[in-house]
Amino acid sequence: MLALSGYPLGLRFVFVDPVPNAPGGQIAEQIVADYADAAAHARLAECDVVTYEFESVPEAAAQKLAERVLVLPPPSALATAQDRLSEKRCFQKLGVPTAPFAPVSTLPELERAVADIGLPAVLKTRRLGYDGKGQFVLRKPEDVALAWAELGGVSLLLEGFVRFERELSLLGVRGKDGSTVFYPLVENHHRDGILRVTWAPAPNVTPELQARAEHYSQLLLDKLDYVGVLALELFELGGDLYANEMAPRVHNSGHFSIEGAETSQFENHLRAVLGLPLGATAVREPCAMLNLVGALPQPESVLEVPGAHLHFYGKAPRPGRKVGHITVTAPTRAELEARVARLSTLPGAV
Amino acid sequence: MLALSGYPLGLRFVFVDPVPNAPGGQIAEQIVADYADAAAHARLAECDVVTYEFESVPEAAAQKLAERVLVLPPPSALATAQDRLSEKRCFQKLGVPTAPFAPVSTLPELERAVADIGLPAVLKTRRLGYDGKGQFVLRKPEDVALAWAELGGVSLLLEGFVRFERELSLLGVRGKDGSTVFYPLVENHHRDGILRVTWAPAPNVTPELQARAEHYSQLLLDKLDYVGVLALELFELGGDLYANEMAPRVHNSGHFSIEGAETSQFENHLRAVLGLPLGATAVREPCAMLNLVGALPQPESVLEVPGAHLHFYGKAPRPGRKVGHITVTAPTRAELEARVARLSTLPGAV
Repeated sequence: MLALSGYPLGLRFVFVDPVPNAPGGQIAEQIVADYADAAAHARLAECDVVTYEFESVPEAAAQKLAERVLVLPPPSALATAQDRLSEKRCFQKLGVPTAPFAPVSTLPELERAVADIGLPAVLKTRRLGYDGKGQFVLRKPEDVALAWAELGGVSLLLEGFVRFERELSLLGVRGKDGSTVFYPLVENHHRDGILRVTWAPAPNVTPELQARAEHYSQLLLDKLDYVGVLALELFELGGDLYANEMAPRVHNSGHFSIEGAETSQFENHLRAVLGLPLGATAVREPCAMLNLVGALPQPESVLEVPGAHLHFYGKAPRPGRKVGHITVTAPTRAELEARVARLSTLPGAV
Repeated sequence: MLALSGYPLGLRFVFVDPVPNAPGGQIAEQIVADYADAAAHARLAECDVVTYEFESVPEAAAQKLAERVLVLPPPSALATAQDRLSEKRCFQKLGVPTAPFAPVSTLPELERAVADIGLPAVLKTRRLGYDGKGQFVLRKPEDVALAWAELGGVSLLLEGFVRFERELSLLGVRGKDGSTVFYPLVENHHRDGILRVTWAPAPNVTPELQARAEHYSQLLLDKLDYVGVLALELFELGGDLYANEMAPRVHNSGHFSIEGAETSQFENHLRAVLGLPLGATAVREPCAMLNLVGALPQPESVLEVPGAHLHFYGKAPRPGRKVGHITVTAPTRAELEARVARLSTLPGAV
């Protein structure tokens, strides 16, 4: 999606991905290699700028590459976002509210953290978690041993469980010159830890709530000397916002923006890392994004729904794998809900 | 632009173009070959469907290919549109108004046609004219000899000169099942025979005018058993519409639709030739398209204008060559005009 939005800007792309025939490689040059591969770095060093859309690129590889070519967002931001403890401490230092948290490396530390934070709580690996993987929800004292058996042995973080009313996310974009734009808050619905539906804009968002979310994002963007799209996941509870995590990349909850916003997150990410002026982020019509997980519907069945647009990623369907998404717009929220209800019956979107 | 709109639908593309490194070849497989080349046909015959975005593909080549693979729009429609006389007779037969016209092959025939139709009139080659090439405007009797000296020797057509108030165009799309959708009429401004600016929707279009244009397009689409996007260029004069010509392909005056319409003409063309449901054609905000001719502006200078989006085609600039376009949207027509005025000062758009 980055390449598709960049070709009209006259850009050319080289993708590094260890998996052959990755989506990017189907429409541009792909180097099949590890992210730290020397030959891959030599090829990337010929580019004007290197960016990532996968946050688990090893920081060391990104730092090494940054000695030879401009790498944005800065590898230090990648490092902060990769480690849940650094991330939470960054939130804390900036005064961005979060659930209470504590680092955990041993079973006694876990027991102490549970005593401090209370239950329910969520035990998470500090690194490499995504789509709900590497997480264990502790609801009762007996769960402590189960959680430790499941996740113990790597660096962990225990977080208090926010009984949030809903999950929102904010896409912020910061340019090389420090200018920023923000998309409207969107509302995210997960199942089994995987994002299934995003509503854009999120309903019932006051200007104050939007401003508060933008303030938090602005603090992070400036602190990290960030350039590009930064996604900030937030819990809403009683009118307050708690930062859950940030993703230093274009984000699934921003996919709606291809049809739903004046400038897509992909184009704005590229504009940012290239030092070009950022584009408008307005959402003109109520919009929703439905992920296609584990299966692909017949294109006809999607496209016959008014306002629906299809995005296949060129990935083979596997259980739990995101293989595409649908964006749908409508003139009113009620009509949008009807269209989403209809699309939600299709394979992959069920 | 077809490929960029088709990738999200899960499509793959093979382009045939005699010019190496054509725009399509920069983002997909390109066969560098003549349109009638046997090896190229063998490769195309492996596709599900073949279409064209260049109306001068020889009809014989298209017909031959159609014996092996589905070719849409039908080669017969291509043939009708390639020959100005067939095209005008098709309009005439269907009751679609045109300027008076007469075929011309000899100087005496030209003199007779001028006597019948009167001056001013336009002498045009029957085939291979585009961007104002192969045309001669006759204003006074002495121009007859000059026009003949310039164009004589090939099959010609003399047309009465419509002193039109403005040029409009209508993009119609017909699906395999005969369903049709139409975009709002757009207003086109040329200079030196080359389209420079399209306003979408055209201002001051009554529902009756839109309905009449759609009626004419519907007659053509059905008569030609058409599948895909058909552009119909119309002159408006005193509330009446006169068909100028049709283009059996996605059309420059429809480029605005990438950002400006709910479904782009490119996606709708692909949906049509694949037998998929057609997408909505609504234009939500006033929009304009500025061609970039002979030169490319600095991307910054375009993107700093609110609502502006850039499309470079990967072509080297040459005088008179279309090398890209800018789309710009705005909440009001007045604001749109201000933005267009600003963009109109840039290299390529001047």
